[in-house]
Amino acid sequence: MSGFKGLAVPGPTNMPFEVRRAMDVALEDHRAPDFPEFTLPLLADLKTVFRTETGHVFVFPGSGTGGWESAIANTLRPGDRVLASIFGQFSHLWVDMCRRFGLKVDAIDCDWGTGVPLDLYEAHLAADRGHEIKAVLVTHNETATGVTSDVRAVREILDQLGHPALLFVDGVSSIGSIEFRQEEWGVDVAVAGSQKGFMLPTGLAIVGVSAKALASRPANGLPTCFFDYQDMLKFNADGYFPYTPAATLLRGLRASLDMLLDEGLDAVHARHFRLAEAVRRAVGAWGLRLCAQDPRWYSDTVSAIVVPEGVDANDIIKSAYEKFDLSLGGGLSKVAGKVFRIGHLGYLNEIMVLQALGGAELAMRDVGLSFEPGSGVGAAISYLSEPGADAALAAQ
Amino acid sequence: MSGFKGLAVPGPTNMPFEVRRAMDVALEDHRAPDFPEFTLPLLADLKTVFRTETGHVFVFPGSGTGGWESAIANTLRPGDRVLASIFGQFSHLWVDMCRRFGLKVDAIDCDWGTGVPLDLYEAHLAADRGHEIKAVLVTHNETATGVTSDVRAVREILDQLGHPALLFVDGVSSIGSIEFRQEEWGVDVAVAGSQKGFMLPTGLAIVGVSAKALASRPANGLPTCFFDYQDMLKFNADGYFPYTPAATLLRGLRASLDMLLDEGLDAVHARHFRLAEAVRRAVGAWGLRLCAQDPRWYSDTVSAIVVPEGVDANDIIKSAYEKFDLSLGGGLSKVAGKVFRIGHLGYLNEIMVLQALGGAELAMRDVGLSFEPGSGVGAAISYLSEPGADAALAAQ
Amino acid sequence: MSGFKGLAVPGPTNMPFEVRRAMDVALEDHRAPDFPEFTLPLLADLKTVFRTETGHVFVFPGSGTGGWESAIANTLRPGDRVLASIFGQFSHLWVDMCRRFGLKVDAIDCDWGTGVPLDLYEAHLAADRGHEIKAVLVTHNETATGVTSDVRAVREILDQLGHPALLFVDGVSSIGSIEFRQEEWGVDVAVAGSQKGFMLPTGLAIVGVSAKALASRPANGLPTCFFDYQDMLKFNADGYFPYTPAATLLRGLRASLDMLLDEGLDAVHARHFRLAEAVRRAVGAWGLRLCAQDPRWYSDTVSAIVVPEGVDANDIIKSAYEKFDLSLGGGLSKVAGKVFRIGHLGYLNEIMVLQALGGAELAMRDVGLSFEPGSGVGAAISYLSEPGADAALAAQ
Amino acid sequence: MSGFKGLAVPGPTNMPFEVRRAMDVALEDHRAPDFPEFTLPLLADLKTVFRTETGHVFVFPGSGTGGWESAIANTLRPGDRVLASIFGQFSHLWVDMCRRFGLKVDAIDCDWGTGVPLDLYEAHLAADRGHEIKAVLVTHNETATGVTSDVRAVREILDQLGHPALLFVDGVSSIGSIEFRQEEWGVDVAVAGSQKGFMLPTGLAIVGVSAKALASRPANGLPTCFFDYQDMLKFNADGYFPYTPAATLLRGLRASLDMLLDEGLDAVHARHFRLAEAVRRAVGAWGLRLCAQDPRWYSDTVSAIVVPEGVDANDIIKSAYEKFDLSLGGGLSKVAGKVFRIGHLGYLNEIMVLQALGGAELAMRDVGLSFEPGSGVGAAISYLSEPGADAALAAQ
Repeated sequence: MSGFKGLAVPGPTNMPFEVRRAMDVALEDHRAPDFPEFTLPLLADLKTVFRTETGHVFVFPGSGTGGWESAIANTLRPGDRVLASIFGQFSHLWVDMCRRFGLKVDAIDCDWGTGVPLDLYEAHLAADRGHEIKAVLVTHNETATGVTSDVRAVREILDQLGHPALLFVDGVSSIGSIEFRQEEWGVDVAVAGSQKGFMLPTGLAIVGVSAKALASRPANGLPTCFFDYQDMLKFNADGYFPYTPAATLLRGLRASLDMLLDEGLDAVHARHFRLAEAVRRAVGAWGLRLCAQDPRWYSDTVSAIVVPEGVDANDIIKSAYEKFDLSLGGGLSKVAGKVFRIGHLGYLNEIMVLQALGGAELAMRDVGLSFEPGSGVGAAISYLSEPGADAALAAQ
Repeated sequence: MSGFKGLAVPGPTNMPFEVRRAMDVALEDHRAPDFPEFTLPLLADLKTVFRTETGHVFVFPGSGTGGWESAIANTLRPGDRVLASIFGQFSHLWVDMCRRFGLKVDAIDCDWGTGVPLDLYEAHLAADRGHEIKAVLVTHNETATGVTSDVRAVREILDQLGHPALLFVDGVSSIGSIEFRQEEWGVDVAVAGSQKGFMLPTGLAIVGVSAKALASRPANGLPTCFFDYQDMLKFNADGYFPYTPAATLLRGLRASLDMLLDEGLDAVHARHFRLAEAVRRAVGAWGLRLCAQDPRWYSDTVSAIVVPEGVDANDIIKSAYEKFDLSLGGGLSKVAGKVFRIGHLGYLNEIMVLQALGGAELAMRDVGLSFEPGSGVGAAISYLSEPGADAALAAQ
Repeated sequence: MSGFKGLAVPGPTNMPFEVRRAMDVALEDHRAPDFPEFTLPLLADLKTVFRTETGHVFVFPGSGTGGWESAIANTLRPGDRVLASIFGQFSHLWVDMCRRFGLKVDAIDCDWGTGVPLDLYEAHLAADRGHEIKAVLVTHNETATGVTSDVRAVREILDQLGHPALLFVDGVSSIGSIEFRQEEWGVDVAVAGSQKGFMLPTGLAIVGVSAKALASRPANGLPTCFFDYQDMLKFNADGYFPYTPAATLLRGLRASLDMLLDEGLDAVHARHFRLAEAVRRAVGAWGLRLCAQDPRWYSDTVSAIVVPEGVDANDIIKSAYEKFDLSLGGGLSKVAGKVFRIGHLGYLNEIMVLQALGGAELAMRDVGLSFEPGSGVGAAISYLSEPGADAALAAQ
Repeated sequence: MSGFKGLAVPGPTNMPFEVRRAMDVALEDHRAPDFPEFTLPLLADLKTVFRTETGHVFVFPGSGTGGWESAIANTLRPGDRVLASIFGQFSHLWVDMCRRFGLKVDAIDCDWGTGVPLDLYEAHLAADRGHEIKAVLVTHNETATGVTSDVRAVREILDQLGHPALLFVDGVSSIGSIEFRQEEWGVDVAVAGSQKGFMLPTGLAIVGVSAKALASRPANGLPTCFFDYQDMLKFNADGYFPYTPAATLLRGLRASLDMLLDEGLDAVHARHFRLAEAVRRAVGAWGLRLCAQDPRWYSDTVSAIVVPEGVDANDIIKSAYEKFDLSLGGGLSKVAGKVFRIGHLGYLNEIMVLQALGGAELAMRDVGLSFEPGSGVGAAISYLSEPGADAALAAQ
């Protein structure tokens, strides 16, 4: 078929031309004497995006999954207890990995469509007077359900209780897109991937680690080499890497950081809110609801949209992909067939959102859903035309 | 701002990744022994797209303007009489060029929004019993107003009258997108540019010339060298060019021809009709009208949309460009400020059209036009969801 | 400075335009229904390159180091004994990793410039009547010294002795360039990286695993998730991946495999021999010698060249890089300052080799080495012009 | 075959990655309000490269041939007399074009291998007391023979004689590479192409025109439209173009100008001299001679090398291209088969020159030429290693 494919999944995201071009380079010698002139500012700017001053941001060839693994392998021992909650496929997989690494996981099962249960976390941690819990896990943005949790509040609970557990955050679909403050929120390990807010191809695990976590390597811990923080730290100090880095992606990351910092992190977040809200207005106009059960859980990077009973969401996704060149995200595991997802993060503007909404309308009509054609797009346009929204735009 | 720019002008059009990639090559020696293995099939496939068997399609570094110039310089003499009609900026400029080359132009002024006046052409040619008129000019698709004229009918008039004039067609915004049949319609020179239906960057004048026109070089004609058909023909026979060709664009043209021929010309035309009709439905839903005064003039490659009295169309275009990353086409000359144009040709699918319509709605609202938000997009979606339209889709 | 940089390090290698172009794509949904149409043949063709029929080739985001880690984590337990030999920086690092993962390593220290000591391996394995040794490690091509070892001979020793140990091969700088036969040689885990013979950017660990190794996952083994063979195998069966794959690199890998298979693996190996031999002739003409102590160790993918006493090889490398736009490889660890390396693997032809040799001559002269200018390049040209070499060329 | 192709023809030249990347963009609206922010500085910087202050530099879609045509069409009338000299294929074609445009050409035939005959020009102009000669043509660098002529001296002759003729210069293979000073040398029209010193794909005629020439449009001159200076000037004033410009190439031109101006024009010229001299040393070492008959004619952008009697130069070129991936330039017209050409202009450094020389040696040996292998490359290396050459390098 003719025409650009639309990409409205919650990662990989749309890649700016600037980023693509930055990676369209000949391969290079990563031991060259001038390589550090490139890498040292890059690593410094990553700290700006993670908003950490005393920590270090690691860049591994890998993916978010590798980032999670690095957090466990560098700070915990088999048998250590961690507190977690499950409310979607990615929070589920994280807990699963912990268990495979021999951790004892206190995993709180929550409704899919809710997020981290602050009250239960508080109760649980308060009860842990012996401080057996070594780490608390927070999925900042559950990509499977479009739910954002309150990381800052978890930090406040820990502080209030004087609990020394490390705070781990899965920020794969949040960092670089919505507000995240590693230092201020006392996050000890924050995991991101290249293919979401950083608008790059998949291939990098980007992991922010606090000074506290860097000092927490236990004796007799898990073996690790590829994801070892200390090896990496030693080489990074001089602008090099302990093994061949994915230099091409690093060149793209440079372009990506330039774009994020040029726009300004606050403006990036405002843009994500506004575009997400436009999607939510469309969903309402279609007479549908989000998987996220309450506005406080609404994610500004991805919306999981619940389809009516009797409709298979996968039919919508299939129609969008095969007939209309549009990639929508599917429901995973428990919500498979029940939701389709629109990713609205990364390199994105109003007309890209309208395109995704328009394509979704075509696909929903194609499978027989009943709604007023254009109503969702219209609601989005209406919202985006509001004076306030316009002011937000002007502020960019 | 963040996000892909939308390009909805009537050329340059959107460039497929395949084409962009095909041009992303090192420079090459255009005198290499294997260069003809590349060029000869390319020139042959151009004939397929122009639907000519006995003619030749020339490729010059240049633009449509250069193509027009080649037609004059290779077949006419100063003082020769030609018949033309003016109903938009491009038909106007063509006549202007003819006059600058010393031709006597019988130029029929028509309403902008109409096309070639068949009855007047017939009368004029019938009156020309001495066959003083050496060429008849037809702007197949007037890009400025979104009007398509009937080339075949002009040929029928000439044939009926037994008039030997050459038939020149400006097919810049038609060839490769809507039906064009050089051989069958007896077109003697047909001018196209790389940046429209061929989905390439600007830089090539692509000119189909009939055997009759090739044999028509008059003694004491205009001097020409760069655009000389005979020089080019001689070198093309062996797969070479009389001077350095724009080889990078030729590599892109290869990819473009592959895409057009893979989709099939008939399917390409059907797609253009369907997407154009979606735009027209949107225009109706907004309560606006096209510059084209009658359905028989409707162009499937560009729609010029008349804005209400008191509105400056340029404000819409400016808003779309500066606030919403969308390039719409402006009104030129007589219709400046009165119309904005949506190009819907080349590499295009449903969701790209919905994006352009959605962006136009944002911009129209931004400048105060009153209409139901989403109504245009909705009308397009509604049309595109019709069983018939769906069947057209399936046929692709 | 003006002009293309020359890349003559032993990886990353020169990337073909075809590969670069194949990766210059928009990001894509790795859960799309047609993704397996792309991935399944890709995984199959990898088996052709590894020359395995009953094994599986895994592709992880990562690097060679990650590949090593996967071998250990998926097949061994802490406390397991392995046999290895150290004769360069990479064989050294591999042993180091094994120890960090709690393995007991019988590591035979060899002269740098030699390879796997077959007699000592044989003696060692013969003495291991209780079959305590669970794996035997062979660095097929030691990138640091330019030494190739005889993998097939190690297999023969194991077979002769009826020893059941797994055979692990570091093929990072050999697979895809010089002869490697996983099935025939009975290799259980073979590790390659994207940035050498596969001519891609760094970012993929490519790991061939035998059916035997796949069945060897011990109870109470090391935890692993990111590099887990079973997870990957399960998803690969349907053409998917357990987490987001580095799809852009996979697109490049497709192009790379096409090129390798089009040229033919035997022709690829012949080309590597011929170009390597040209480099060796140059070294001889300069009056220098290789780090590899005997022709049977000569590597066809990289030559480490010993500089005369009193010369710092790093000065040559620095001059080449800063004054002449040429990246040469440095000496690592024990041979730092004593050798410089010319990588001659991957996408390479005669004129690229002559360029590297010419640039090396410029740099060697710049730091004061005494030799006849052009002598090395001349010796290479002379060899490449020999009738035999020419025949080899013709056979390509 | 595997490996990068070498391009050592005198245009198209090697294209820097920076330029390629700059052109790897989506198509854009050339009527956008911010387009002039891009074009106006571009046009200004072109004046810096042409070293003109009072003139204007035009950029047409086209090639050098189109540039020549523009000079004639904008300043002369059929029947006008011009003075020219022929000493190679390109000076020959220029004269041929003049005649086709109805000019009376006093064409002095010179030996191929010499350049503009200053004494004959002087005599001819002195004899033209009636100032019938309207233009004097100088091929600054005859690409076919590798001969550079003295433009400044022609200007001095005109001034000394008080002759008002326009001075036209073909600078296609000189401007941007070797010294050219439009204002100081009083050049009225200077023609360049994108594919030589500007390191771009073919597709632009770049024409510097003096204020005097701009004011010289004769009444009843030749018709022109596509190449019309006045039309272009009018639109350029606002940063636009009278018809669709080749915007993608303009984006590349931006990158190219940045590189030229960053390196500095004087440094660019010094680099061209040094690399050209290295080629000349190689030619000497091979026992061959240049087509250019005297050092004062030596071109720093291209060397035409005369092969011994009995050898067909085309065999060398064919061998280089087919067996060794190297494009050398062929002999044209009178010198076909007698010379092969090495282009050494544009994006070029030492190792690229050594590569071309090494490849040429392989090809010359392949066809049976007798010389010491490596002698040419060695002579080049020897020259490039001289303290003086090194100083020149340091000065860059």
